[in-house]
Amino acid sequence: MQLNVGLLGLGTVGSQVAERLLQKRDSLARRTGVVLNLRRVLVRDAERPRSIPSELITDAPDEVLNDPEIQVLVELMGGEEPARTYIERGLRAGKHVVTANKVVMAKHGPELLELAGEMDVDIYFEAAVGGGIPLISTFKVDLIANDIERIAAVINGTTNYMLGRMGADGLDYAAALLEAQAAGFAEEDPTADVAGFDAVYKLSILASIAFGARVHPDQVFREGIEGIDPLDFRYAKELGYEIKLLAYAARPNGKIEARVHPALVPVSHPLAQVEGAFNAVYIEGDLVGPVLLRGQGAGGRPTASAVVGDLLDLVFTIRKKAANRVLMTFDPDPPMLPMADVVTKAYYRLRAEDRTGVLAQVGRVFGEEDVSIASMIQKDSIEEGTAELVFTTHPARDAALARARERIAELEPIRRVGAFFRVI
Amino acid sequence: MQLNVGLLGLGTVGSQVAERLLQKRDSLARRTGVVLNLRRVLVRDAERPRSIPSELITDAPDEVLNDPEIQVLVELMGGEEPARTYIERGLRAGKHVVTANKVVMAKHGPELLELAGEMDVDIYFEAAVGGGIPLISTFKVDLIANDIERIAAVINGTTNYMLGRMGADGLDYAAALLEAQAAGFAEEDPTADVAGFDAVYKLSILASIAFGARVHPDQVFREGIEGIDPLDFRYAKELGYEIKLLAYAARPNGKIEARVHPALVPVSHPLAQVEGAFNAVYIEGDLVGPVLLRGQGAGGRPTASAVVGDLLDLVFTIRKKAANRVLMTFDPDPPMLPMADVVTKAYYRLRAEDRTGVLAQVGRVFGEEDVSIASMIQKDSIEEGTAELVFTTHPARDAALARARERIAELEPIRRVGAFFRVI
Repeated sequence: MQLNVGLLGLGTVGSQVAERLLQKRDSLARRTGVVLNLRRVLVRDAERPRSIPSELITDAPDEVLNDPEIQVLVELMGGEEPARTYIERGLRAGKHVVTANKVVMAKHGPELLELAGEMDVDIYFEAAVGGGIPLISTFKVDLIANDIERIAAVINGTTNYMLGRMGADGLDYAAALLEAQAAGFAEEDPTADVAGFDAVYKLSILASIAFGARVHPDQVFREGIEGIDPLDFRYAKELGYEIKLLAYAARPNGKIEARVHPALVPVSHPLAQVEGAFNAVYIEGDLVGPVLLRGQGAGGRPTASAVVGDLLDLVFTIRKKAANRVLMTFDPDPPMLPMADVVTKAYYRLRAEDRTGVLAQVGRVFGEEDVSIASMIQKDSIEEGTAELVFTTHPARDAALARARERIAELEPIRRVGAFFRVI
Repeated sequence: MQLNVGLLGLGTVGSQVAERLLQKRDSLARRTGVVLNLRRVLVRDAERPRSIPSELITDAPDEVLNDPEIQVLVELMGGEEPARTYIERGLRAGKHVVTANKVVMAKHGPELLELAGEMDVDIYFEAAVGGGIPLISTFKVDLIANDIERIAAVINGTTNYMLGRMGADGLDYAAALLEAQAAGFAEEDPTADVAGFDAVYKLSILASIAFGARVHPDQVFREGIEGIDPLDFRYAKELGYEIKLLAYAARPNGKIEARVHPALVPVSHPLAQVEGAFNAVYIEGDLVGPVLLRGQGAGGRPTASAVVGDLLDLVFTIRKKAANRVLMTFDPDPPMLPMADVVTKAYYRLRAEDRTGVLAQVGRVFGEEDVSIASMIQKDSIEEGTAELVFTTHPARDAALARARERIAELEPIRRVGAFFRVI
């Protein structure tokens, strides 16, 4: 059997996929019984010299999308449009789709999956989240017997690299960003990563599949890592924590909680040990207990591994004209837990005038807001006549934590609330 | 659609599987479109009172194996026989099989998979290795585009628990074993775990699938953890290592290397951080790079998660009479790398008379055997007039490491070689 593949996009991932399909054609055919035949590749500039045969290259989308011989579209263009439109056109033409596009799958995944079902074809999107780490397949098949209770993830390599450099080497935010850009981990406009959008897209995909419910990116609470002070890494370390950009989803009392924000993670937690540009996803299922999946979350080769894995998974499915689709059904409008009702621990760093009675005032506010203090550190501040106060709390409603923060900022001897983080 | 399930064995895992199938029947049917109907359960003693309906229970194997209505056998009896025979009978009768049996799959997996292929049915065995951690499916599908370069795993929870207690709390081997038995982690006869057989079975299954080659348990080098001295944990810590029972497979220069033995693992390695009864498998593929999968490697609930996951994977496969079997082909007689030719680093602990010239003599032996020293510690020993010498080496052939060990033991001022470990 032969499967004709149309490739949309020949960037870092596309080049790796094309190369593997061309170079490993025979050995993949031996192992799977199917020849994966790369038939056409859509690029922006067809004139540019490339290592793959020029007769495969085109810059006319219709030459791929309208080719009736192409059975699978592999979409690796990235970005919302025109990728979404091309995927939809492919599905409507009865083509299977493999995509690495997190934006399209986060925003339009459930609709596209439904359309695929109507057309009796499949969409695979393992590469959209976590590079080559087998996440989608794990939720879709391996853990399907479980009620998923919780997902906690470090799922953006750029910010994890930056936070690592800030924590271990004392770089400030600007220096860490410059270095990440120089190393090729951060884009020139780093907003998607540092403001948490990338992590939100990925969490929205994972949470939707884990809970069988539509979690739209707009429903995910989001805070980025911009402007984190190196000082907080030192206090975090003293208290036994690392600072990570946490992506977290859970389903307490039937409501879905989904949030992305910087968080203090205990050093003993597996997520604290995820270094550099690695990703890790920590899953808790009612049967399986805790499972951790860790690997390179981005990059041409790991992502290509997931794309080709999906292609071969698809091959197994259609080898005998079978449809082995998991019925991915999504509750279209599940009850969401508002951020105000989320229960979490927190960390506050305050700068206060160094006089008596400050602690009592702060403590009274916490008490009145029903926030219970877990630990406290007081140190001289670099600012003359002031002290730095660091508090961590026991679990409390996020609304109460926020109100305490506002009220403390207004206390007369408090110069400012220097930092506020949630604690996992 | 309805799938009739026959369950063989109602121990810890079987009870969990039966419970989940009975209690989650409706919600699983909603999510998958298939009713998993538990039709018959084979037990040893049908008279014992149980929580599942008594009309399902039988102690007559033929009532399950010969029931033409049963489409899937779920084998959870454990042990080689009669489990292997029942699986074979099931396959020959055209039944699919889901099994958690590592002994049967390690010793007879390739033959049973071939028989299943002939009968046009499937065997799933995710639960045979690493409890609910998705390992088999990861190799079979997700990483299929990769050439797997290396597997390094902590895959026996019993020994990992014991080594943890010895390392962190200074227990000796006998005390750690007693405690593991009291906690239910170790059997009354602990040989399968402490001598490394359990890890060998699991590694043999993983390596066979990862490399597409028959790695029989007899071909896996094996050393257990019996008699490890608490002293070595202190030296290991001083040198920056943990001691783990390592299961390791690789394919250097086209030959397969497969071995299970205690090893020093650098504290920064993800496997060093696997605590208690957890399992973790570290995989390196040429595309995906390093991937780590970690979770509870045993126990009724995690294993049941894998069993029910397999059942549902099977459902997706056969829903439309499809066969989406991955062609698992195994090179029946791959070239194996003899242990003597394995290249590894090592750790030696010697007790020597405390006089001049000892170091020179030991150094000369290492030099003559082409083993290069990486680090050395010398300390007073508890034995009057002797010193403890600890060496770590750079990579060398295992045969050379063994010869050096023998020759050093024969040196006149050496009282004994107290320990020898390989280092990852």
